[in-house]
Parts: sequence; structure tokens; C-alpha cells
Amino acid sequence: MKRITTLLLSCLVSTGPLLAQQGVTQCGTPTGQAPFPIQSYKELPDPVAPSEKEWAAVKAPQVQWGNTDTRYAKHAVPVIQSQKSITLEGWRGEKLHAQAVVWTGTDLKGLNYSLSEFKNSKGDVLPADAFSGGFVRYVMTDELNKDGRGGCGYRPDHSIYDSLLVADPIDHLLTSMPMEAKSTQAIWINCQVPQTVSPGVYRGTVEVKDGDNRLSTLKMDIKVSSRVLPAPSQWAFHLDLWQSPFAVARYYQVPLWSQAHIDAMRPVMKMLADAGQKIITASIMHKPWNGQTYDYFESMVTWTKKVNGTWAFDYDVFDKWVEMMMSVGIDKQINCYSMVPWKLSFQYFDQATNSMQYVKTAPGEKAYEEMWVAMLKSFSKHLREKGWFDICTIAMDERPMEVMQKTLQVIRKADPEFKVSLAGNFHKELEADIYDYCIPIGASYPAEVLARRAQNNLPTTYYTCCTEAFPNTFTFSDPAEAAWMSYYSAKDHLDGYLRWAYNSWPKEPLLDSRFEAWAGGDTYLVYPGARSSIRFEKLIEGVQAHEKITILRKEFTDKKNKTGFKKLEKMLSTFNLRDFPEVPAAETVNKANKILNSL
Amino acid sequence: MKRITTLLLSCLVSTGPLLAQQGVTQCGTPTGQAPFPIQSYKELPDPVAPSEKEWAAVKAPQVQWGNTDTRYAKHAVPVIQSQKSITLEGWRGEKLHAQAVVWTGTDLKGLNYSLSEFKNSKGDVLPADAFSGGFVRYVMTDELNKDGRGGCGYRPDHSIYDSLLVADPIDHLLTSMPMEAKSTQAIWINCQVPQTVSPGVYRGTVEVKDGDNRLSTLKMDIKVSSRVLPAPSQWAFHLDLWQSPFAVARYYQVPLWSQAHIDAMRPVMKMLADAGQKIITASIMHKPWNGQTYDYFESMVTWTKKVNGTWAFDYDVFDKWVEMMMSVGIDKQINCYSMVPWKLSFQYFDQATNSMQYVKTAPGEKAYEEMWVAMLKSFSKHLREKGWFDICTIAMDERPMEVMQKTLQVIRKADPEFKVSLAGNFHKELEADIYDYCIPIGASYPAEVLARRAQNNLPTTYYTCCTEAFPNTFTFSDPAEAAWMSYYSAKDHLDGYLRWAYNSWPKEPLLDSRFEAWAGGDTYLVYPGARSSIRFEKLIEGVQAHEKITILRKEFTDKKNKTGFKKLEKMLSTFNLRDFPEVPAAETVNKANKILNSL
Repeated sequence: MKRITTLLLSCLVSTGPLLAQQGVTQCGTPTGQAPFPIQSYKELPDPVAPSEKEWAAVKAPQVQWGNTDTRYAKHAVPVIQSQKSITLEGWRGEKLHAQAVVWTGTDLKGLNYSLSEFKNSKGDVLPADAFSGGFVRYVMTDELNKDGRGGCGYRPDHSIYDSLLVADPIDHLLTSMPMEAKSTQAIWINCQVPQTVSPGVYRGTVEVKDGDNRLSTLKMDIKVSSRVLPAPSQWAFHLDLWQSPFAVARYYQVPLWSQAHIDAMRPVMKMLADAGQKIITASIMHKPWNGQTYDYFESMVTWTKKVNGTWAFDYDVFDKWVEMMMSVGIDKQINCYSMVPWKLSFQYFDQATNSMQYVKTAPGEKAYEEMWVAMLKSFSKHLREKGWFDICTIAMDERPMEVMQKTLQVIRKADPEFKVSLAGNFHKELEADIYDYCIPIGASYPAEVLARRAQNNLPTTYYTCCTEAFPNTFTFSDPAEAAWMSYYSAKDHLDGYLRWAYNSWPKEPLLDSRFEAWAGGDTYLVYPGARSSIRFEKLIEGVQAHEKITILRKEFTDKKNKTGFKKLEKMLSTFNLRDFPEVPAAETVNKANKILNSL
Repeated sequence: MKRITTLLLSCLVSTGPLLAQQGVTQCGTPTGQAPFPIQSYKELPDPVAPSEKEWAAVKAPQVQWGNTDTRYAKHAVPVIQSQKSITLEGWRGEKLHAQAVVWTGTDLKGLNYSLSEFKNSKGDVLPADAFSGGFVRYVMTDELNKDGRGGCGYRPDHSIYDSLLVADPIDHLLTSMPMEAKSTQAIWINCQVPQTVSPGVYRGTVEVKDGDNRLSTLKMDIKVSSRVLPAPSQWAFHLDLWQSPFAVARYYQVPLWSQAHIDAMRPVMKMLADAGQKIITASIMHKPWNGQTYDYFESMVTWTKKVNGTWAFDYDVFDKWVEMMMSVGIDKQINCYSMVPWKLSFQYFDQATNSMQYVKTAPGEKAYEEMWVAMLKSFSKHLREKGWFDICTIAMDERPMEVMQKTLQVIRKADPEFKVSLAGNFHKELEADIYDYCIPIGASYPAEVLARRAQNNLPTTYYTCCTEAFPNTFTFSDPAEAAWMSYYSAKDHLDGYLRWAYNSWPKEPLLDSRFEAWAGGDTYLVYPGARSSIRFEKLIEGVQAHEKITILRKEFTDKKNKTGFKKLEKMLSTFNLRDFPEVPAAETVNKANKILNSL
């Protein structure tokens, strides 16, 4: 593929929310538009020009149903069968999706679409607000590391990577879209089937137009089973996508923790709640991950060293964040990062010098214990007053064993009842101390540990990050991989899935998903303007599948339905990491989905 | 004079107390000793070599009384009359001084001296602890601006100025001192005459030795009058030398506001109290003078902007400073700088962003009023609780008239009872609002204003800074100028004197009194180790003279002693700025002193 070396949007080093607060805008974008668009925006130019030869036969606009596993390239004629009618299938309460594709040899002034009523044979209608979606937009991405082994590492020289415009953001804010001749545009349609509708087939159409000029009408049947998926807040699935309030403040150019910031975050976080998120990500110290993201994580706890040498803590920001997240429905757990940050340096406001100071200290040292025991005792008191102590965990990333053990000692000294979570490798020495344990998707828990943890209702999950070439949720990953992961989690009887970055946006996430480190899209799943993405919708598909499997397993166990159980487990046995990349995730997932819907 | 271009100690830009707190030492000194010496230290080499011809006649060590108006050069044979006996004269309670001079053609291993008992004819003895002083040390200085008009302005190229080693610090910490052949060394002797001794002449001697080898015995008579000078704390003189706790923390390499810092400051500030200081200098915001000194002034008030947008203030540091200063006897007034800093930028700890932030705002703006009304209301409450409201002033330096007027409006809005002080030009528009008014020594108050202010007990003073070529207290200024200023203040019926820098030490104040701005010694009067200086002792001489004049004026008025009054005013009439530099300050001061002691 063509290499585009000049498009990476990195004219300034990471500046974070502080600049944003001061209303400082950063340098412009190659599209000429103002930075940080929210309502409407222009995409970056496609590095690949359409092939005249390929497009020669295409004149009038074409409209067909595509599938939701394909990112249809902007410059290419889609390889697609003629399909004017599809059937979606799912439980009541489930969110289903479809993708229509438009391609044209001539310019279109205003592509738009509208949905008819969806009615079953008895005349029952799916409410209009059950449907969502939008135009699938194109964003710049890169590719896996050159050795094909994951997407980790810094990428100071982006010129060695392919630059690729891929379909990912789902733009629900546009009602009409111009199309250039010789280009392709997809339309994503979600149907959130109400839990209360009658089972049956609901029939309707999608009318696709250019302005007032009808291009095509596609048929869509929605086959609703009698089974009911609970509301996301009731799902057992332990979804832990780490949120960044700091990226939102910077991107929206609003002061951190102002009402404007809260207002900007709410729809972004509501979308996460609706995906079944259970955990609030809280940063209880400055830069828990040493500022690795475009916007670093600031402490939500105010650390003050008083002039008399004592520590004082203030939880105003922490409370504001937690209460906002709870208000959108994410209220099951609060994970607090980090007693063992990636750089063992702890910032605080020093009253004596009227300045921000750092203590460099490590678990096992006196200064570390002194400051953290003071903090945790105060924090425990505050959490208990708020009634949050039982849902709060002191959260760690993988650190050397000795460091984690010494950290645990300090936690226990401050308050032995604190829950602890860990995202890292499996360590039998630590496991008994970890309430919420998450290991890489390629690793495994000993069977007896898994059984005991299940019995004790201890959240036990997998994560993916930059390490995995497959399955993953890079902007260039096959969309079905995002669903695959949750089937795999279900196969191994795990409770859910963790990813370290829900919205750690790079500078211009709507335009360019690449970052100075890791493969494109590694740092976020959703887009500004509370725009979803193909990846995120497929991830929800997987979460729903996991939830359905949990429900079916319970039912089959309760009802001693061995046949059902066998079908389920046989289906799950088709999810094997070793099959990547030869067996496409979509193939496995789609087969599994059909089986699941048949049970 | 010879120009030495390489000696200025400025290997690092100003770093201030923060580095000090972290124990970071700065680059070494040309003497090879560790930075920031306290107990003992080596002086910088004299840029001027002794003249072989001049010293040819000097073999054995010579000892004579000198006068206290001369800085005897290290490399030169002192021009001095043979004088083995002197008489000091003063009131009971007064601090008197004398200077002995030793010069030698041969090396001395350990110059030392001891004082005999000082007895009057009735056998009464002055207590041994009445005496203080020490070896007069040499420090590097420069000179006035090249046009001879003061010492203001930055001096990025010190090579254009003379470098001159001058006698100034009085080192009371050494008991013995080696002397190189062909060099001169002075010994400073203070006698703090107790208020309770009998009047009369107390006779004693000063024995000067090299090791155990007696070089000479000098006679000293101390003629004590029956008049009594009150203790410095009781003086009416309004002495306002601005203190820098920040320079002490950095120089002593102790954490700001730690016990070690308090311990280091106490003797330095006690020395100031003993000079009659009445005012505590408090910085209530960050960098009131835009960090113009080697160690910038940090806020003693903690400004916090809470996440809910309200301001919070903490006075722990302010209280600690004020209480420490009061404990050494400086407790009459607290001047708080500054609502109108030199750069209209206000730093605060911002809870939302967990960082130090600045507001740029000016008097007359909404943001300015909002923050300062909040601060002053809180401050007023705190000061009243502490019982300090009546001795506290909101202090300004000269700013444009409109700015000062708008500032006053904000003060009045917050608490109309706040006292205000101003060091700047005389403005009739503002005068009624200013409790403590200080104008440059070359300016003057209208007679009716002076009379009214005196009647209302409003402190009304002069200041000197870098502007004045004469009189001044640069390290190269004639020592008597430091005394002259207070006679001049008395002549004009003013209450005292202000200088902006008691101890804003440059990097290595014991070695080099020069700074990146202003003439040498402009930024400080005393030295680390609570070492006094010739300048400071002469300044005390002037303060005492002012106090004596105030006492005599009152007595002469009360007793209708017109003769005394005339003599006093005639004596004061000899103090005229226009006489500089033709008439040496010492000549005027010494004549005046004799008259004063005769009244």
C-alpha cells in the first residue's frame, strides 16, 4: 500500500487538559478545519486514489446490504453480492446491527436514508427510537508492527507504516452526506430490540436517497426470539474499559470538572454504560501510567502536604467523577489507580513551597508507607462515609512480584478490608489477595483457581492491549475480533473483558486514529460527539453473546438440558487463539451466533 | 581600578528555595570551598595585589585604632594616624562601636584579640556580654552605574564594572584569623551599653595578639551619659527592612518552613529586631516582585481554587512566619505584599487540574475583584481571629495611580477597616487612604500633610533603593551614609526609614555582594551566620540618633528648652542631599553625633 508520511497529526507534543482549560487551541489539521470538531467534520484525504479501471463500470449509485464484518474501503468498489433484503435475528433486549453500502460513479449531493415502520404480522410495531446508527466514516490508521507480532512500541517514524483510511466511526450526527464520484459509503443501522415487544418477525425497509431522489429501498426483517436479554446494567458481564475524563476535557476544550465538562462526558459515558460497563476508572494519584496517553491522567484526589508535615486529602474531584458515572448507570465498581504507578514518583501540592512537588519512593520504603498509609486510611474513611467502600478496589497493573507484595502489605496495614484488583500476569502467590483479577487473553488461570474464584463471585477476566495481533480492536482489526474475544472469555468461563483505553483519544481521533505509540486505534474505541464505531458495536455484540451464554448455561444447568449444554460448549470450542489469522474471526463468530440464537 | 571579569558568582540562574529544599547544591565557588558556607569560609582573592613599594617599609605587625567610617582595603597600608587610645561616647542603652586596624609585612598565623574588664572609677563594671563584634571580612563588590547616577538596572556584563574587594561583613564566629604578609585586617568592636549602668567613664583595653604573641594593647574609654535610650522594641523609629525567609532556606539548604528553617532564621531576624525593626514583611501571593531577587518570594498564603469554583485560603505558613517574627520581638506591624504585584499574574493551586495555575487579571477587572474580595474577606476574618487585624496593612509598591485607586476600591469592598501601606511616590489623591506612607529620600511630603499625619500617628517615612548614588548602603558606599539617612529623616520630621532588602542574598553573599541587577550590596545588609556588617552597624547608629533626637525634641518641647531645640535643629540643618558627594557623610554625621551627645 501507499505510504503517506505527512499525515500524522502530531504538530505539538502532548499538552493535555491544562492547555485545554486555558482555551489554547493547538495547531490546525491538514483538512484546514478548526481543531477538535464535534458536530461535523471533514475526513482526511484517502491516501489511495480510486482505480479508474475498477470504477469504469460504475455509473449510477449502487445500494446493497453489506455485512457488518467488513470495513468497506472508500476508494474501492465493494466486493459484494447483490442483496436487497436481510434478516437480523436476536433476543428481546438485544442490540442488533446491519450495514448497507452505497457506491457511486457520480457525485452525490446529499446521501440520506430513512427507516420505515417495522411491524410484525399482528401489527405490533418496533418503536422508532429502537433504531440508531449513522454514516460510517473513514479514519486514518496504520498497521501491526512490521514483524506482525502485535502493535506495541513507540512509532517515532510513522513513515515506515502504511497509512490507511479505514471505515470505523459511526456518525449519528449527520442527516445527509455528499459523496464524491468513485467512492463508497456505508450506513450502519442498529436496532435495540425492546425487552417488552412480542416475539416474531418485524418487517420494514430502509430507503436510501440522494437529496429527494430515491436510490434504492432495502428490506430488513428483524426476527425477535422469545428469550429476553436483561438491561445492560443487569448483565453479569464484567466489562472494564478504562475511561479518560481528561481526553474529553481537552478535546471539547472545556475546563476540567466544569459543568461543561460533565455535560460533554455524559453521552460518551452513557454509551459505555449501555455496553454493559461495570467499572469506574479512577486515578487517585498523578500520572498512574506516567502520562503515556495524549492526555495524561491527573489525580482525582488532591494530595496536600501541610506545612506541619502531615498529609491532607480532598476528594471533591473523585466524588464528582464517581457521582457523574453513577448517574449514567456505571455503579458496580470503582477501580483506583495506582499505588504502583509506572514511574514511582508521587506528586503533591506542597503547602510550604506553594508548589507541586514529587516524592520518589517505592513500596518497601518508609516514605512510601508513610504517605500511602495516611492516604488509604483517609480514603477508607471517605469511601465508607460515601457508602462506596465495598465497591472500591485499589487497582494495580503488572509490577514485579516483590513490589506488588510490599504494596499489599501497605494496603493491609491501612485497612485490611480494602479490595484489590490486578491487571497483569497470573501469580499464584498473589491470587488470594486479588478481588478482581485480569490476565492477558493468551494466558490462563489454573482450573482450580477459576472454580474457586467463580464460587466466591470474584471477577476474573481477560484483557487485550497492544500485545495481541489477533484478536484485537485496532482500527484496522477485523471487526468480528471485537466480538470473538467475549466468546473466548465465555469459553474459558471467565466473567468478562478489560481494555485499558475506552477513550484515551489521540490528538484528532475523528481524523487519525494513530498515536505516537502502538498501532492505530489502540487508545480508544469510541469517538468524540459520542460517536460509536464498528469496533464498539461488534464488541457489544460479543458482550451480549457472553451474557446470553451465561443465561443459557444457567438455564441448561437448572433444567439439566444436557443437549443444549453440549451444543453450547461445542460452539464455544471453535474459539481458539491458534486459529488466528487463518480462520477469520467473522466466520467463527457468525456460526456461533446462529447456534446461540437457535438455543 | 583593575577590572576582574571572571569572579561574578553566577553559574546558575536564580533557582530559589525549591531546589534548596530538595538538597540540590549549586555549582562551586572560585575559592574551591563548598557552596553556602556558614561557620567559616575563605574570601575571594583580592583583584588588587599589594604594592611592593607601598609595603616596603612595613615589617612587623602594626596595630592602631582606626575609625568606623573607613573600609580599610586588604591590599593597602592603611592611611591612619598613630592612635592607641580612643573614647566612645553615648547614652545608656546605646550601642557604640570602634574599629581597630592591624597590618603586617609578615605572615601572622592567628590574629586574635581579647577585651579587658571595663570599669569606672567607682569600680562598676560593664558586663562582658555588652561587647560584641569580630573580624571585618572582605567581600566582592562593584560600583555605581557608569554615569554615577545610582545603581539601578541589570548588569548582564559585569566586566564593564570595577571588581573591588571591600571590608563589610563583621565575622563574630571566628576567634582567630591568619594574615598574609602585606595585608590589612580590621577588628570591629561593639559595646551595647546597658540601660542600668551608672553614668561615667568605663576604661578598658583591647589586647591584640598573634597566637600567644602580644602585638599591641589598645586603650578604650566608654563615656556613658546619664541619658537612657529605650530598648529597640520601644523605639518610635519606624524601621522597615524587608525580610526574605526564602533566601535563608536556600542558603542554609533547609526545607522551607521546617524547624531547621525557623532555627536558621531566628538569629538573623533577632539581629534585625535589635536594630529596631517594627515591621514583618509578608508575601500573600506568589512573586509579589516578579522574582527579581536571587530567591523569589513565595506566597505565605495558600490560594486554592476548589473544583466547585470557590476560593479557599490557608494561613498555616503566614501564621508560622508571623509568630516566629513576633517571638524575636518584631511585632508592631505586618505589611502584606501585594495586591498589585509587578506582574499582574496570580498563581493558585487549582484543585480541578491538580496543578498550579495563573490568572492574569488587573485591578478594575471582574476576575480581580472576585478573587481579591474573596481573599481579603477570608484574610480579615483570620487576622481578627489572631488579633492581628489592627497591625496588618495591605501593602503596595508604586503603581500607576488608576491601578492603585482601583485596588483601594477592592480593599474597601472586602473590609473597609483594612490599613494600607504604600512605598512609592507622594500622591495627594491617595494620601488619606494610606496608613503607612513611604516616599523616596529625594522627594518630600507637603508640610501640612506631614503635620496631619504626625498628629494622627501615621507612619511616614523615606526609602532608599538602587536609585540613590548617595546616601546609600551599597557595599562600596561610605559607611556613614547608612547613619546619615536617619538624621535626614529626623530633620524632615519623618518617622523612619524603609529599604526593600534586609537579606535578599545573592548566590554567595559572604563572598560576592554583586548581583545580576543593581549595584553590589543593594539586595542585603547582613550576612549568613547572622553576621552583621559595617553598613548595618552604621545604620543602627543612625536609627539610635533618630531616636535620641525624638526623645530630645520631646524633652525640649515639654521643658520649653528653646536653646536645646535650636542646637538640635541647627545640627540637623547640616544634612542636605545636595552636599553629596562633595561633603563626606562621615564629616556631617560625626559632628552631629558630638552635638547630640552634648545635649
